[in-house]
Amino acid sequence: MKQDRLNVIVWNEFEHERENPAIRAIYPEGLHATIADGLRRTPLLGRGAVPLEVGIATLDQPEHGLTQERLDACDVLLWWGHKAHGKVSDAVVERVQRRVLEGMGLIVLHSGHFSKIFRRLMGTNCSLKWREAHEKERLWVIEPSHPIAAGLGEYFELPHEEMYGERFDIPAPDELVFTSWFEGGEVFRSGCCWQRGHGRVFYFRPGHEAYPTYFDANVQRVLANAVQWAAPRVTIADVCPNTAPLEVLSEKSGRFATAGVLQTRSDLE
Amino acid sequence: MKQDRLNVIVWNEFEHERENPAIRAIYPEGLHATIADGLRRTPLLGRGAVPLEVGIATLDQPEHGLTQERLDACDVLLWWGHKAHGKVSDAVVERVQRRVLEGMGLIVLHSGHFSKIFRRLMGTNCSLKWREAHEKERLWVIEPSHPIAAGLGEYFELPHEEMYGERFDIPAPDELVFTSWFEGGEVFRSGCCWQRGHGRVFYFRPGHEAYPTYFDANVQRVLANAVQWAAPRVTIADVCPNTAPLEVLSEKSGRFATAGVLQTRSDLE
Amino acid sequence: MKQDRLNVIVWNEFEHERENPAIRAIYPEGLHATIADGLRRTPLLGRGAVPLEVGIATLDQPEHGLTQERLDACDVLLWWGHKAHGKVSDAVVERVQRRVLEGMGLIVLHSGHFSKIFRRLMGTNCSLKWREAHEKERLWVIEPSHPIAAGLGEYFELPHEEMYGERFDIPAPDELVFTSWFEGGEVFRSGCCWQRGHGRVFYFRPGHEAYPTYFDANVQRVLANAVQWAAPRVTIADVCPNTAPLEVLSEKSGRFATAGVLQTRSDLE
Amino acid sequence: MKQDRLNVIVWNEFEHERENPAIRAIYPEGLHATIADGLRRTPLLGRGAVPLEVGIATLDQPEHGLTQERLDACDVLLWWGHKAHGKVSDAVVERVQRRVLEGMGLIVLHSGHFSKIFRRLMGTNCSLKWREAHEKERLWVIEPSHPIAAGLGEYFELPHEEMYGERFDIPAPDELVFTSWFEGGEVFRSGCCWQRGHGRVFYFRPGHEAYPTYFDANVQRVLANAVQWAAPRVTIADVCPNTAPLEVLSEKSGRFATAGVLQTRSDLE
Repeated sequence: MKQDRLNVIVWNEFEHERENPAIRAIYPEGLHATIADGLRRTPLLGRGAVPLEVGIATLDQPEHGLTQERLDACDVLLWWGHKAHGKVSDAVVERVQRRVLEGMGLIVLHSGHFSKIFRRLMGTNCSLKWREAHEKERLWVIEPSHPIAAGLGEYFELPHEEMYGERFDIPAPDELVFTSWFEGGEVFRSGCCWQRGHGRVFYFRPGHEAYPTYFDANVQRVLANAVQWAAPRVTIADVCPNTAPLEVLSEKSGRFATAGVLQTRSDLE
Repeated sequence: MKQDRLNVIVWNEFEHERENPAIRAIYPEGLHATIADGLRRTPLLGRGAVPLEVGIATLDQPEHGLTQERLDACDVLLWWGHKAHGKVSDAVVERVQRRVLEGMGLIVLHSGHFSKIFRRLMGTNCSLKWREAHEKERLWVIEPSHPIAAGLGEYFELPHEEMYGERFDIPAPDELVFTSWFEGGEVFRSGCCWQRGHGRVFYFRPGHEAYPTYFDANVQRVLANAVQWAAPRVTIADVCPNTAPLEVLSEKSGRFATAGVLQTRSDLE
Repeated sequence: MKQDRLNVIVWNEFEHERENPAIRAIYPEGLHATIADGLRRTPLLGRGAVPLEVGIATLDQPEHGLTQERLDACDVLLWWGHKAHGKVSDAVVERVQRRVLEGMGLIVLHSGHFSKIFRRLMGTNCSLKWREAHEKERLWVIEPSHPIAAGLGEYFELPHEEMYGERFDIPAPDELVFTSWFEGGEVFRSGCCWQRGHGRVFYFRPGHEAYPTYFDANVQRVLANAVQWAAPRVTIADVCPNTAPLEVLSEKSGRFATAGVLQTRSDLE
Repeated sequence: MKQDRLNVIVWNEFEHERENPAIRAIYPEGLHATIADGLRRTPLLGRGAVPLEVGIATLDQPEHGLTQERLDACDVLLWWGHKAHGKVSDAVVERVQRRVLEGMGLIVLHSGHFSKIFRRLMGTNCSLKWREAHEKERLWVIEPSHPIAAGLGEYFELPHEEMYGERFDIPAPDELVFTSWFEGGEVFRSGCCWQRGHGRVFYFRPGHEAYPTYFDANVQRVLANAVQWAAPRVTIADVCPNTAPLEVLSEKSGRFATAGVLQTRSDLE
């Protein structure tokens, strides 16, 4: 991060909007455009909030728009994907993972629960129950003092959303910020925080392509808050160093040594 | 699990012992043989402890000894690898991961911190500091009431071990059972528990091939306890079901539906 | 714990049932009698399950039925209280807390969220939203492989219950087993696990006195499972020992010592 | 919090310094004066860091210097106590606890592990092993990207400190920032974070009165960072509201109601 700006990329697979007129009618320039626009317009809130520089990237760009250079300069990446998870190159996924572990923030949206990058960072299947029935979702704030909940009431509602229900196959979140109530009878951990390496990961449930969810002011507030929360505090490259002792070792240290044994780690990779 | 036995497999890459006489002198039949023998001999301890049926598997066997059939019957898998992580087939790693997420227990030993299966389940690099200097390790019991600590004192010592030091690049463990003190001045979270899917994962730090660590009675007690702790409570295959509502949805449900939108999830994979 | 039995006490303030005919009609012998009966009848389930010896204790007994001797022999205590929290003596609360920290299990039921013992172990207010409107509660199993969920389906329902809604002012649970959906639109973390000292604490939401909740087979299964889960693994009395070094300290140790400084801790209490 | 300043109070029992010349020689104006001075001098670091307004409070002041009015204006309270925990009035402890649960930050220092306020917020004994032998402590940074570790190296050392060793009887911390290595052979979780209510609590181990620990630049950096981390994000007073349903309840709601039953909660306190 530069002192004065957070560099944000909104990534979208951008297929539904091109293929389906009903979805294009809602998001004519793509989900990413609406998400990015929401981030740009949402007023800064809270101690230490920093203005954003928001760019976009899509699946069809070279390297999906996520070159090493762009990622190196990125503070927080948002990820929307659904039907094209399999088209995302493993090399790009690995690159994103490395950046998260170094410190970059990652916000995974809705159907991104099945994206390669999210499953890889979680280590689990990330499965869930689902239903498309235009039903009401009410998101309850479980941790009102969490930075991601800043400026929200005790709950907020989305009149029509796809349903996601438990059990959601994720590692227990470090922090659970939202839990959703669905009209059809299910509940869902819909705002989940994890630390992975030096990076922060936030999963946010709403955002089905068939509804104007990303125009909702509360959803925009959550995403703006999440970007500030996920911004890197440090950037540290991965190392696995052979290190000298900090204390004098006793003479017994020599006893066990055998030529050939001491270097076994060196051929590790 | 059958009612009356836990089916355990000790997996070892089994290369050091064949290539290096100094290591073969310690573990003539392989590290796996000593680990398996320790599991067989350690008396059952605690409420609900079940006798073990212990088998072994090695890298050089067909499918590394981990066929689907064997894994399906396995309750707890122990994993020792070091220099040959790259030789383990991705297909077998994926198979093991799937079984863990279904409920199988996994115990990752020492240099297994860099194994494909551990990194995949953690989602992080799993890097650390290290040093081979035959130094003393003292493992402190942080949670004396954890089942994995049953029968141990407040700490136990290993006179010579490889050093692993923080920062250990793992997701914060669900439960931290042991923390090591090293003669050379480092500390390490040396006994860590995670739940992943329906399976339990335990990482245990000691066990460098150049030392007779797996002959140590306390180490054997830890592994025997960990097997009991990691044994499956259920086995549940992964699903991501489309489910009907449990409550009557209001009439508004119909309003937003558009042909072609409702089925978008079906082409997910 | 004796080898072969868990010693369980069901504690009840036992006031509603005596004062209110409508409630007495549901629980003629008191809520505790029904809870205890359910524990006695529910079949053992799962590896290591141990038969129970179930007793009861009530507010009006000498020392509320919780003498030091009885508590010392108790493995798991269940606690139902509502309108008489203030009548529970601080000395008994302190005694119960000490036993939990030593290893005894504690299961806090429904309106026990405001009991002195629960608030003391949590350190928070334990407040929540509530409403008595005879509405439907559906408890979703968030962790199907948790021992407390053994034998349950993906969810179970209670046709009429008091509503408790978030935010529930508790420390984030170590494990979240159930989350409730309410007909009126709220959600609640209704099955929460914590470790405190060497003891395990489980909070279970349902159980309003005006409904026959403790006759429900799923509720009885949860309580039976929770007793097995909460049973002590060890019993360790509290100490804060002054201990000798395990390693030889360098000569510098002497440099800083000043008479009178070294003993400051001894007058701590 | 005002927009532009954090209001900080350093509380000290202030007895050792008055009674013991050796300690007075190190901290002539009291530990609190040195701690407050360190906070005032340490440069702001990191996104969103806010200048501090630092005051002090001591045991011998009326209401221990912690009137309701002062606490209401306080963003972060630091607490140093050792030999006089028993002299702190329960009313003041309760007042501090209420403010933490509303959102005020609390930083508990060294022997404050046995303070009433810390034990009350933790719910455990907070016992540990200890030894005064002027030995070396090395604090390892377990989470380098945690805001409290900003500006530190991989570890830092204190040449002479009292030893605290595991097991430390606390609820498992939400975040473990530091773990200490001691010359005499012990380890300790020496920087621990918890959320309680809407407030953040940080325990920091070093700071025995017989050593000049609070003059150490790394210690000062940790405390300055911790104040920023612990500053309130919101302030929310405790309520336990009876709330109306958000959804239309089915007709069955009326079936179970009985006069006298519906009001039982009102006499709760």
